[in-house]
Amino acid sequence: MTAFPIYLDCDTGIDDALALAYLLASPLASVKGIGTVSGNVSAAAGARNTLDLLQLAGSADIPVACGAHDPLAGSFGGGAPWVHGSNGVGEVVLPPSDASLAAETAAEMLVRLARLYQGELRVVAIGPLTNLAEALRLEPSLPSLVGTVTVMGGAALAPGNITPVAEANIWNDPEAAALVLASGWDATLVPLDVTMASVLEEPHRQALLSSSAPVPQALGEMLGYYFRFYEGIYGRPCSAMHDPLAAALAVGAVKPAVAPVVRAAVDTSSGPGRGQTVCDMRGLYAGYPEVKGARCRVVLSLEEEFAPHLVETLLSHFERTTAAELVEAVPAG
Amino acid sequence: MTAFPIYLDCDTGIDDALALAYLLASPLASVKGIGTVSGNVSAAAGARNTLDLLQLAGSADIPVACGAHDPLAGSFGGGAPWVHGSNGVGEVVLPPSDASLAAETAAEMLVRLARLYQGELRVVAIGPLTNLAEALRLEPSLPSLVGTVTVMGGAALAPGNITPVAEANIWNDPEAAALVLASGWDATLVPLDVTMASVLEEPHRQALLSSSAPVPQALGEMLGYYFRFYEGIYGRPCSAMHDPLAAALAVGAVKPAVAPVVRAAVDTSSGPGRGQTVCDMRGLYAGYPEVKGARCRVVLSLEEEFAPHLVETLLSHFERTTAAELVEAVPAG
Repeated sequence: MTAFPIYLDCDTGIDDALALAYLLASPLASVKGIGTVSGNVSAAAGARNTLDLLQLAGSADIPVACGAHDPLAGSFGGGAPWVHGSNGVGEVVLPPSDASLAAETAAEMLVRLARLYQGELRVVAIGPLTNLAEALRLEPSLPSLVGTVTVMGGAALAPGNITPVAEANIWNDPEAAALVLASGWDATLVPLDVTMASVLEEPHRQALLSSSAPVPQALGEMLGYYFRFYEGIYGRPCSAMHDPLAAALAVGAVKPAVAPVVRAAVDTSSGPGRGQTVCDMRGLYAGYPEVKGARCRVVLSLEEEFAPHLVETLLSHFERTTAAELVEAVPAG
Repeated sequence: MTAFPIYLDCDTGIDDALALAYLLASPLASVKGIGTVSGNVSAAAGARNTLDLLQLAGSADIPVACGAHDPLAGSFGGGAPWVHGSNGVGEVVLPPSDASLAAETAAEMLVRLARLYQGELRVVAIGPLTNLAEALRLEPSLPSLVGTVTVMGGAALAPGNITPVAEANIWNDPEAAALVLASGWDATLVPLDVTMASVLEEPHRQALLSSSAPVPQALGEMLGYYFRFYEGIYGRPCSAMHDPLAAALAVGAVKPAVAPVVRAAVDTSSGPGRGQTVCDMRGLYAGYPEVKGARCRVVLSLEEEFAPHLVETLLSHFERTTAAELVEAVPAG
């Protein structure tokens, strides 16, 4: 089994932390670089969280580049501390990493990796799309250089989560999202339709919390904060699994059940539709017949439930890794 | 059983014809006046169709007022002959009525009837909302004068039918719809979410066609045209039941199963969201908890299937009426 080279673009963020841990744990993924962008937290804070998580996971060798602080239009709005905590990881204090940020920007890293792994790189974008838009400006042929692009974002037939129609990642930089979706690549969109239906419940969180390994433990703690926010949405302590689901779909570990390829555009007006990912779902009533010229695959449902796979992947990898480290540590001591 | 006094605002239209016939047939409805507006056809053509249908139904005494030709902004776009036929009733030639139009406009009629049946009038709006917007200008206290307002229009979580997000009635006059939804009344919206799920199938159409009464026969013929359009949407000959469903909900003959009261606004921007009825459906995940200050009831599903009730109501009324006329006709001859 060959692992896919991955560029992860994130705004770490509790569910970003889960996505990152998932990609480190998955045998299908080999993370080659991570760029951060302002979204759940600032790009700089997201980069610190990412470095700290990588060190906790024993993967401090993966380069992290700080990306765009501000969206293409306007400026960073301050993040979502009521969802992710003031530090982005649910007030959990991670051991600080002593690793440094990469000298390149996130957009530069993406372009470099796309050239290095020509046709193979899987781009997983789980924050606002500012860095991807900048990379497209740096390298207009980026669409032909990358392998696949998977974006957590938008809401096709489901309600938005910032406005009635806009989802957070797209809302935070509609101009960048419009540019990215209008580029000549076949993107997979992982919208709220499927992420809000992929719910992590309290028993899943307890399984992470009671792990012997530090990464699942920390994720379980962060999820306590996240669950409290989502209790206001679902009426019970649990949470949607936005970002890790996009990661799992990007490496093919999870298969979509319904995922029509449709035309999609982003509303960059100043009307009530601003930030909406306008997906043309009018094929619904005939089982989504093929649409000529459409390039955006919108994942609406999954073949199997996602949460058990997520928890199982995290626990089996990190408990095995930790055990191996302990074994190695004995003769060394 | 008391029948509710009804003002019907329509753009007749095949499904408008069904709604009109349904209201004439329903023991719960007493149609006091009908206004027309440009939409499926021009307001004038819709008025002719309405007069002809009323005469065929033996209800030529119901007054018909011609309403707005153009939307509040811009001008009438020419209708939807590919859906409703060039004459609006699927190329069916109805015996021409010799009745005249009312001397008042549709907006004036609505205001007059609202004052006459103070607190009792049920407004059923199944075309663009231009006349309702004009009536609100004529009589700003209209919301406190009418009983209920039921609007066929919009798409809450379903795709639009003109653009990916805009439904035809709202699309044809977004400025009027914005005004109507922002007025101080509790409106019931009957959007594509429920009308596209309320399907009339070929056996229903055959039951109308093979009726002994002229009104069901004519409706069955019109539906042949409508079915051909909808075959491109559903992949089989059948049709959505937009307007008659709004009529049945307005008189309470059909009960909603899920119908949250939410905030709703209309996108009047020039962006890709223009004409969208932006309903705030974010309460979805907690079973739509009450929203303070919300006034728009959005019907998402029904307690029972609608098509059988529609066909049964039409057949039982018009066959009975026709039979009674024939009996009366014998001694008279």
